[in-house]
Amino acid sequence: MVSKNQIKLINNLNQKKYRNALNLFVVEGEKGIEEFLESDLELHTLFCTSSFEVKKESDKVICVSETELKQISQLKTPNQAVAIFHKPKPKPLLECGLTLVLDQLNDPGNLGTIIRLGDWFGVSQIICSPDTVDCFNSKVVQATMGSLTRVSVIYTELSSYLKSAKLPIYASAMQGDSVYKSKLPKNAILIMGNEANGISKGIFSLATNSLSIPRFNTTNKPESLNVATATAILLSEFNR
Amino acid sequence: MVSKNQIKLINNLNQKKYRNALNLFVVEGEKGIEEFLESDLELHTLFCTSSFEVKKESDKVICVSETELKQISQLKTPNQAVAIFHKPKPKPLLECGLTLVLDQLNDPGNLGTIIRLGDWFGVSQIICSPDTVDCFNSKVVQATMGSLTRVSVIYTELSSYLKSAKLPIYASAMQGDSVYKSKLPKNAILIMGNEANGISKGIFSLATNSLSIPRFNTTNKPESLNVATATAILLSEFNR
Repeated sequence: MVSKNQIKLINNLNQKKYRNALNLFVVEGEKGIEEFLESDLELHTLFCTSSFEVKKESDKVICVSETELKQISQLKTPNQAVAIFHKPKPKPLLECGLTLVLDQLNDPGNLGTIIRLGDWFGVSQIICSPDTVDCFNSKVVQATMGSLTRVSVIYTELSSYLKSAKLPIYASAMQGDSVYKSKLPKNAILIMGNEANGISKGIFSLATNSLSIPRFNTTNKPESLNVATATAILLSEFNR
Repeated sequence: MVSKNQIKLINNLNQKKYRNALNLFVVEGEKGIEEFLESDLELHTLFCTSSFEVKKESDKVICVSETELKQISQLKTPNQAVAIFHKPKPKPLLECGLTLVLDQLNDPGNLGTIIRLGDWFGVSQIICSPDTVDCFNSKVVQATMGSLTRVSVIYTELSSYLKSAKLPIYASAMQGDSVYKSKLPKNAILIMGNEANGISKGIFSLATNSLSIPRFNTTNKPESLNVATATAILLSEFNR
């Protein structure tokens, strides 16, 4: 049975200001919830139908009907369970390995895909500009497929972070050096920019190198790659 | 002014059976429509508000109000114009260059992203299994960002196509050879599989080689990469 207050809480958690104030976020989908339950993140409440198998302590688990699940889910076809988790404690900044920096990324699907890529390629942390889409947005959480439990995502002013950084800073740019011809270090920072506008000027000026992914033919079309696919290729190059 | 019949036509074109029967499809969004207008595809009808600048012959262009645009658009916030185009004539199969084969791809966003990637990396054609999502689905068209005008997408039975193919056939697979250690030819076929299940067994058995993208660490997580990002990395490797 879901109470009115619980419905209100879940609805509120669709908004970043409530997620920040309460330090909670929502996870949907069986697979994602299982990954979060196995991680060291603390469960707040799990709402699930009787077909969802769960081994967690029972006072945080609430059995609901399919109709109730529809009431609290953001999905068109809800997937057996909706969970609220406490956000992880912020991790300290690292100064080694490969750090990904995201400047004003807007699209939740792109951020989710990039977090999943970071997990695959062993990225030690992802640093986002304060106006990048919130990684606890439910669409981002879903697209990460559980990777959010393993990758540290930190929101901070990029210019001060980059100014104090001691590693070489690579910016992804249409006019950059070919990534296929660049010798890439294991410890570095890679900046990816906004979907429409790329990296903002002030941030770009702090980079020590720039990288591009050569287009196969030299006509003017297509104009660009999607930021998540470009990130995939660049992270692969840093790791190969 | 949009007539009832025109509204009905656009609604019908959301369904694959009408797109196939009428050989028409819908394009939304200013940028996408401009790319299609510049291509050699034949315009059927363009519905646009007065703020959309267009140089095409006027009998195919219908000026509409923002309210009318909302009626015919699939988008929450319609983007100045909706257009109907005639589908391109099917192109003949090519036997050189890099051919991408998609086995039962379901997600429109993934197919759109992969067509855009194919355009960037000079893929000569994309061959899809008959049950792969339709490339003229409006979400696919939008995600291609105009690349659909330049890449030939062909739907056919994969097994007969692959059996008659004369090029080496690479299958993307979790247990394949490291793509970083494989010498890749310029003329080849690369198969990518379904989002949840990968390449079906019968199709996989027709491959001459298999390729994987090594994970940075050797824990069991994360389990996989999204098919569009994996395609990005493999196409980049064939081109580098």
